Amino acid sequence: MTVDRNEALELHRKAKGKIKLSPNVSVRNKKDISLAYIQGGAVASGEILRDKELVYDYTGKSNRLAIVSNGTSVLGFGDYGPEAALPMIEGKSLLYKHFGDIDAIPLCIKSNDMDEIMSFCRLLEPSFGAINVEDVKSPIDFDLVKRLRKELEIPIFGDDMHCSSVVILGSLINALKVVEKDLSLAKIVIVGAGTSAVATAELMLYAGATNVVMLNRRGIIHEDMDDLNGVQRFILDRLNPEGIRGGIKEAAKDADILIGLTGKVGAFGRDDVALMAPRSIVFPLSRPEPEMDPEEAKAAGAEVVGCGLIEGPNTMPNLKVFPGITRGLLDVRATGLNFNVQMEAAKEYAANVDPRRLRADHITPFIFSDELTPRIAEAVAQSCIREGLARISPSPQEVFENTWKRLYGGYIARF
Amino acid sequence: MTVDRNEALELHRKAKGKIKLSPNVSVRNKKDISLAYIQGGAVASGEILRDKELVYDYTGKSNRLAIVSNGTSVLGFGDYGPEAALPMIEGKSLLYKHFGDIDAIPLCIKSNDMDEIMSFCRLLEPSFGAINVEDVKSPIDFDLVKRLRKELEIPIFGDDMHCSSVVILGSLINALKVVEKDLSLAKIVIVGAGTSAVATAELMLYAGATNVVMLNRRGIIHEDMDDLNGVQRFILDRLNPEGIRGGIKEAAKDADILIGLTGKVGAFGRDDVALMAPRSIVFPLSRPEPEMDPEEAKAAGAEVVGCGLIEGPNTMPNLKVFPGITRGLLDVRATGLNFNVQMEAAKEYAANVDPRRLRADHITPFIFSDELTPRIAEAVAQSCIREGLARISPSPQEVFENTWKRLYGGYIARF
Repeated sequence: MTVDRNEALELHRKAKGKIKLSPNVSVRNKKDISLAYIQGGAVASGEILRDKELVYDYTGKSNRLAIVSNGTSVLGFGDYGPEAALPMIEGKSLLYKHFGDIDAIPLCIKSNDMDEIMSFCRLLEPSFGAINVEDVKSPIDFDLVKRLRKELEIPIFGDDMHCSSVVILGSLINALKVVEKDLSLAKIVIVGAGTSAVATAELMLYAGATNVVMLNRRGIIHEDMDDLNGVQRFILDRLNPEGIRGGIKEAAKDADILIGLTGKVGAFGRDDVALMAPRSIVFPLSRPEPEMDPEEAKAAGAEVVGCGLIEGPNTMPNLKVFPGITRGLLDVRATGLNFNVQMEAAKEYAANVDPRRLRADHITPFIFSDELTPRIAEAVAQSCIREGLARISPSPQEVFENTWKRLYGGYIARF
Repeated sequence: MTVDRNEALELHRKAKGKIKLSPNVSVRNKKDISLAYIQGGAVASGEILRDKELVYDYTGKSNRLAIVSNGTSVLGFGDYGPEAALPMIEGKSLLYKHFGDIDAIPLCIKSNDMDEIMSFCRLLEPSFGAINVEDVKSPIDFDLVKRLRKELEIPIFGDDMHCSSVVILGSLINALKVVEKDLSLAKIVIVGAGTSAVATAELMLYAGATNVVMLNRRGIIHEDMDDLNGVQRFILDRLNPEGIRGGIKEAAKDADILIGLTGKVGAFGRDDVALMAPRSIVFPLSRPEPEMDPEEAKAAGAEVVGCGLIEGPNTMPNLKVFPGITRGLLDVRATGLNFNVQMEAAKEYAANVDPRRLRADHITPFIFSDELTPRIAEAVAQSCIREGLARISPSPQEVFENTWKRLYGGYIARF
């Protein structure tokens, strides 16, 4: 969707921050002040001093997420720096609130130094239930998440790393049903070798894919390329089992699935799609502009086409899963997340499309579906419990119900 | 005010965070999402990329304050650590919102290392309009503020350092009118040598006081004491012009003003107050328990008595000024604050008590006065403009009016 420039600027100028704080308790008189601040606060503080885990019971840590970004990789736009990244991160915070009732604090920080960012995130742990590392340049973001996960006992994730991959896998589950193919037999071509590309390849391999080919700007990546980064090298020997070499043409030939995560319009086109196997799936996912026009991909022979935006059929922005995943993590006070949790989220995302309505132009859930966030949250919560990643174990359906009530029916606290 | 323990715990358990995020723009349809997030956000991002100062126009930086604490000095309670400090800091955030419509983000951080905390605060600058360093142990907090002020172009303050001192000076201005004495001639005894004590002494000296005596646990501080810290040493040669030695008795003798900032019940008492000059002023300000019962101080001969809590006559919690000071700083997008700004805030605080009603048991403004925050904000804003500390220069009364509208009449944005 193209937006009117002036309308966008006016909205931002009027709002001066698309999210704001609101009181969660009343301040009507001196007694209210005493209860909430010095005297009453001291009672809660004393309890937490006795048992640190009670910080989840008595403070906003249980619903607070940090979105940390240095703005070095804002969508396809490149290095914007922290100030210019702020409207994007605040927009994300707004959507976390609207679709997940999560208090996502925008923290655009002034640093390109790995250790400094590490230290910053480490210090946040007492106040936040989870950390979303956002729009940090690849492969620094991978290393950051990996190192933070070792040190902290709250979930650390990046939406490019852990949410885009879930949306893509989930959409693929449905697309494969439509074209009657099997993930483990499909030839999957991922164009792009940045964070979401590598993370998507990893999750697909974990989910059973066996034939994944990845391309960077110079072509199909292989071990003789001297400019691969650490994470690309790390995944390399699980890719390209047929050892093909070349560019997009060689990769697309007989491929079943073609996924674009390049940030580059024109990274592939009609001719490439035409080379694919029959009943092909094409996802040109870059935002704000896809690699190729979805209509053109269909015209070139693709049976299922999806894109990363929010307009049109088969849209798969990670917005469809990040509120649900995070809601689920927070509601079990998770210590982390892993591939199994992501897989469960992907399956639940796919299952949110009614099987009776599944067809080539309807493989993804409606973005305003009232069940999307509650179902993913429930799946993530139960998966965390099974994986030993949960501090508390809500009964089945409790997270679903509470999430639904938070979003649509008013939240009824259980205490 | 004593609060019921169970009531306090229930409040905290139900709220799970006394403040929460709320949307500041609507999310009704896909167009709203596009305007607020990727496409519309990108327009605002582009403008900020062109001119970094526009971050104040298009994001919540203009109304966002970071409250940074490591919990090493929570009121009189000592080192609580970041988790247990969180209920206090969230309470403070609630009051910032209620009394100043400020988005104060609680950031309780896990570090006792000066450089690490420095780095953390430095990284926050792009996202926040000001930083409140809170409940960090003295004298680390002094050094921290001093170093941060040199590096950052947003106001850095501590409420113990820069707000308690304003409340005390402001209350003293009125108390001195009641007892018909002059600040420059008064003998002022400050019991306590921590952050608020040193900061209060500094502001009073700046305001014209000439005879200030300070005591730590061992008695009147003097240059031969070998355990004074850097900030105590820094202020030492401006204190105690008569060179008196001894303890509280020697200090209180013929004193006009006795201020307690010790965190210690019983730090002084009846006998000490009885030694003071006629028409004396006694402020036992420690919280949650004052050094001595205010009634007892009156019985011992003090003419004006005030305390740091919110209940009773002449209450002077710094809550009465921190919302107004911060509102004023944010509304001129201040680059810092100085003693002159604090003095103006103190004078305006004092002036908020109607002179016709000024008397021994009414020297401080009512905490729910609708004019308190707007007037202090206006005074701070105009003072920042005069001091060259303002990025923008609202017309006289504009900050007053906007603050009043924010708090009581709905905020009408001017754009």
